[in-house]
Amino acid sequence: MARLSIRLDLTEKDRIGPGKIALLEAIRNTGSISEGAKQIGMSYRRAWILVDQVNGALKKPAVSAATGGKRGGGAKLTPVGEKIISIYRSIESLARQSAKDEFRAVGNLARKRRDR
Amino acid sequence: MARLSIRLDLTEKDRIGPGKIALLEAIRNTGSISEGAKQIGMSYRRAWILVDQVNGALKKPAVSAATGGKRGGGAKLTPVGEKIISIYRSIESLARQSAKDEFRAVGNLARKRRDR
Repeated sequence: MARLSIRLDLTEKDRIGPGKIALLEAIRNTGSISEGAKQIGMSYRRAWILVDQVNGALKKPAVSAATGGKRGGGAKLTPVGEKIISIYRSIESLARQSAKDEFRAVGNLARKRRDR
Repeated sequence: MARLSIRLDLTEKDRIGPGKIALLEAIRNTGSISEGAKQIGMSYRRAWILVDQVNGALKKPAVSAATGGKRGGGAKLTPVGEKIISIYRSIESLARQSAKDEFRAVGNLARKRRDR
């Protein structure tokens, strides 16, 4: 099924898209960066890179790793992290609603790929 | 300045985002894949890969290369190519309009990067 994805380009280098949001949600669900990464099939290394990028893009971090070190003490979302997820999901849903007809028109031009 | 980018996920593998749309527009402007690629600072090889991906994602191609071979005869957008650009830009503009307030809220959480 065709879908609309959105990406927030905070600056030219600071981008928050579906992958980072899915990771933040998985960290919220699991209380851990490594478990969150596992849940969405992402490598631990990549998850840390993305968390660093998100934290670096914001005035205050979105994820805080608890004492105990990278693999030790778990991690949780900060209020800013919760807010980013919620705003991202709102924008996504507003975008999908507002462009329903146009999106259907794109679907009609797309080749169906049942063979893959 | 913060911006909203959109991507059309036609299938899990067929994605049309800002890069492909910019390339289609540059091909329209220049009448050539190689000139279009140059205009947006993209390699010729990458431009061909993206054109192939876009054409493969649609029932009818978006770009047709004229006789004379890859480097010879120029290229132009088909009516489907024009339509994809126009629908993409409409969805983008509807999305930006509908989510203005939310987008401003994200901007307030973002760190300003004047130093980069």
